[in-house]
Amino acid sequence: MAADSRLHRSGCRDGSNLLANLGRCPTQPQRTARLRPDVRFRRAARVTPDEFRQNGHELIDWIADYIVGVGDRPVQATVKLGDVRAALPEHPPTSPETFEAVMADVDRVIMPGVTNWQHPKWFAYFPANNSAPSILGELLSAGLGVQGMSWVTSPACTELEALMLDWMQELLGLPAQFRSTSETGGGVIQGSASEATLVAILAARFRATSGAVNADGNTTKLVAYATAHSHSSIEKGLRIAGVGTDRFRIVPHDDKFAMRSDELEKMIAADRAVGLVPFFVASNHGTTSSGAFDPTALIGSICRKADVWLHVDGAWAGIAALASEFQWVNDGIEFADSYCTNPHKWMGVNFDCSTFWTNDRSSLLGALSILPEYLRSTAADSGAAIDYRDWQVPLGRRFRALKLWFAIRCEGIDAFQRMIRSHVAMTQELAAWVAADDRFKVVAPHPLSLICLALADGDAATDALIASANASEAGHFTRTELDGRSVMRISIGARTTTPAHVRAMWDNLRALP
Amino acid sequence: MAADSRLHRSGCRDGSNLLANLGRCPTQPQRTARLRPDVRFRRAARVTPDEFRQNGHELIDWIADYIVGVGDRPVQATVKLGDVRAALPEHPPTSPETFEAVMADVDRVIMPGVTNWQHPKWFAYFPANNSAPSILGELLSAGLGVQGMSWVTSPACTELEALMLDWMQELLGLPAQFRSTSETGGGVIQGSASEATLVAILAARFRATSGAVNADGNTTKLVAYATAHSHSSIEKGLRIAGVGTDRFRIVPHDDKFAMRSDELEKMIAADRAVGLVPFFVASNHGTTSSGAFDPTALIGSICRKADVWLHVDGAWAGIAALASEFQWVNDGIEFADSYCTNPHKWMGVNFDCSTFWTNDRSSLLGALSILPEYLRSTAADSGAAIDYRDWQVPLGRRFRALKLWFAIRCEGIDAFQRMIRSHVAMTQELAAWVAADDRFKVVAPHPLSLICLALADGDAATDALIASANASEAGHFTRTELDGRSVMRISIGARTTTPAHVRAMWDNLRALP
Repeated sequence: MAADSRLHRSGCRDGSNLLANLGRCPTQPQRTARLRPDVRFRRAARVTPDEFRQNGHELIDWIADYIVGVGDRPVQATVKLGDVRAALPEHPPTSPETFEAVMADVDRVIMPGVTNWQHPKWFAYFPANNSAPSILGELLSAGLGVQGMSWVTSPACTELEALMLDWMQELLGLPAQFRSTSETGGGVIQGSASEATLVAILAARFRATSGAVNADGNTTKLVAYATAHSHSSIEKGLRIAGVGTDRFRIVPHDDKFAMRSDELEKMIAADRAVGLVPFFVASNHGTTSSGAFDPTALIGSICRKADVWLHVDGAWAGIAALASEFQWVNDGIEFADSYCTNPHKWMGVNFDCSTFWTNDRSSLLGALSILPEYLRSTAADSGAAIDYRDWQVPLGRRFRALKLWFAIRCEGIDAFQRMIRSHVAMTQELAAWVAADDRFKVVAPHPLSLICLALADGDAATDALIASANASEAGHFTRTELDGRSVMRISIGARTTTPAHVRAMWDNLRALP
Repeated sequence: MAADSRLHRSGCRDGSNLLANLGRCPTQPQRTARLRPDVRFRRAARVTPDEFRQNGHELIDWIADYIVGVGDRPVQATVKLGDVRAALPEHPPTSPETFEAVMADVDRVIMPGVTNWQHPKWFAYFPANNSAPSILGELLSAGLGVQGMSWVTSPACTELEALMLDWMQELLGLPAQFRSTSETGGGVIQGSASEATLVAILAARFRATSGAVNADGNTTKLVAYATAHSHSSIEKGLRIAGVGTDRFRIVPHDDKFAMRSDELEKMIAADRAVGLVPFFVASNHGTTSSGAFDPTALIGSICRKADVWLHVDGAWAGIAALASEFQWVNDGIEFADSYCTNPHKWMGVNFDCSTFWTNDRSSLLGALSILPEYLRSTAADSGAAIDYRDWQVPLGRRFRALKLWFAIRCEGIDAFQRMIRSHVAMTQELAAWVAADDRFKVVAPHPLSLICLALADGDAATDALIASANASEAGHFTRTELDGRSVMRISIGARTTTPAHVRAMWDNLRALP
């Protein structure tokens, strides 16, 4: 029922045509034009610019207070299932409310239901850091409200984004073939690494079929490869692209959870021998479960020989390359046809900002470009302009480059380098403490800021530890399994986390088993 | 090259294992732990909360000024290809800069490159309105920086979103089968209508194959149907899902650009007769080119009989149902398996906010859910909680419900109703003026706020009119083609557009031919 149910639905008097029979009267536009003059000529915004100023200042102050005080809140939401909804009206309001009333509900209802990802005791999943300048970049994007689907729909949105991807290529030490100024490559901001993976699969699918898949949709011979430790988005992307799990080969891994390239080579050969078409390999630079690195240089030379698309997934760990001593996270990347890492994880650019590069933009565009008349432009027709709608699944896109630009310029890369180095140092110190306690075992390599623990007493004890840790003051942690064994992941990556927080976390953990 | 190239890459001394041979030293974590204490224990943020307050207030004021003054700017960007990039440093800065320096570049470099979608002379594409409260909702989302991929990762993010979809169901007068509290349905915010279309196709693909497609990836019998006037995202979504254009049937339309349901019925029967599997029909409620409505009630009964998924695309026009006299835009929607409309177009919730509903969430979840260990939770395992990651392509997601909640509560639905009514009234008044001028022809039904014109002198004259209009003070317009004829689209939908703007636009246009 509409909010203004006092008004009746306009009937259609002309029953003579199909549309009219369906209750639509496109031939009778005058039916919709009867409005009182005072309604008709009034500007359609209730909140005035001055109220926006006042409310905006209040909200900025609220966020500043949140940033300062986030550590005093519980890290995990304190609500039970349904609590948030039950505390809010089931039906929409029939008249406008004040900003103060809404912010009171934010404090009263929303915040107890928020799990605080910016909390210093955030050791779960991976970090999802924001930063003061990136928050403001997002604000400016919302304020401008422009659409960057094509160059012509806001040239600055496209050109700043291409430049930011080139800046990031340089800052991360990535191959020059990924630059937007290169012959065949370029970069784009995707909403998430999952979308980056999907478009990589689609570009690979296009190349492997010489584009035929766009017309025949025949994916029944295509085969993809990754380890069991690759992110769930690989399998999800393959499923979306119509490559079923029957043709997703799980490549064996070694005792460090890294792909065995010798096994990959054999599997590709076996599939080819029976007439299948190996088309996509995902190599992990930092798996989600344990932070493992696949041997991309070895994998890459196999892919080159076999003409298979190599996508490297560095969603979390790739950002470590901002600090030069960690540029080894890029080893082998010169073999990659596509690569993704997320400034919205370990850098300080709030979600969503997933940077994606390819050395083969023609396959990407072949997979994703569609040009109806209403999207044509002289700039696009000339081929000189980048139209980012053809680099992604959605058509519309926000001005996301602003938050990356604001963060790099105002926060400064040195601040991100300090943060990354500090997180790695804290993790290595924690590893030493763990090694000194016989009850705990470190169960995977931990060259960066993710460490996987188990209790010597076995899975049940480890599961109990994770449950009690999450219920304690220690912080928030994620459980995973490594080759069937229960494991506690400790990811140290929130911008607010200090060595004192890690020390307190460890003291808490030690007291639990 | 990294920004701090003074530091050397850390070598790996242990050449005895595979990872080490690749330059990685997971066994030597102490290499990365050598940091000076002052670096190591310093908080990793340069911009202080007080600076954030000050910069934030400045930016809020800048946006308020932008909102007030947007009409004084040119509607289209004034730059040539490459101008924006050329005015910015080709390489990233090596030290932090002030917020003032960045905002000076926003004014100097970015703004001339921005096409102003909030401009009162915005008559191009469709509107992409923001509003003061929704801008602040986006700001709060960025400030909190939470991830709503699962209920457990921030319960409020999920529960507020489900409630907002139920509010919108009620406000738009949509069928109760779409409510999240219903037996089989529910709603979710997608990033764009393109993503909504894609997930609808994936759910349909899952249902038509009884889930087999997840394993065998065999899409070679599936057939989809829509008119040539359906949005490009339908074809793009089908291509992504591995249903090639060979099996995308273009259903003939009538002289109002609406699907001929009799033709659809024949095509479905013909495909079934040769062993193909009709699985997806898209019905348009407001096409992009002309705003045409397909006869969904007729289409829907055909789909029911044939067991074919019906997706209704009301991306732009569906929002009109906020005003009860326009709830005819929903006619037939009770037959839909899925439906999408965009608050980020004609409502005042800044992009991205595309509301999507289905009456068959089990097919949607069947298509999109994947549950690795690190994403498990008690809440998810119980089946009681919604985990929205399984309703969409990406894993991560922002707290987008905030901007919809803020807009509905602070701006108020009555403000959006006034805006919609005002836009429709202006369009109908314009239509009357056009009808009174023999040189112009209205070439399609225009029951809402989109009107398509051509010159009586033919396509060349119309093309010249569009080009000169876009180069003039008249505003910004989009060219399209309707059955091969050049057409000028005039979309009246910016929140800032008043009758005086439309009158001035028409006076400008009349002076051009």
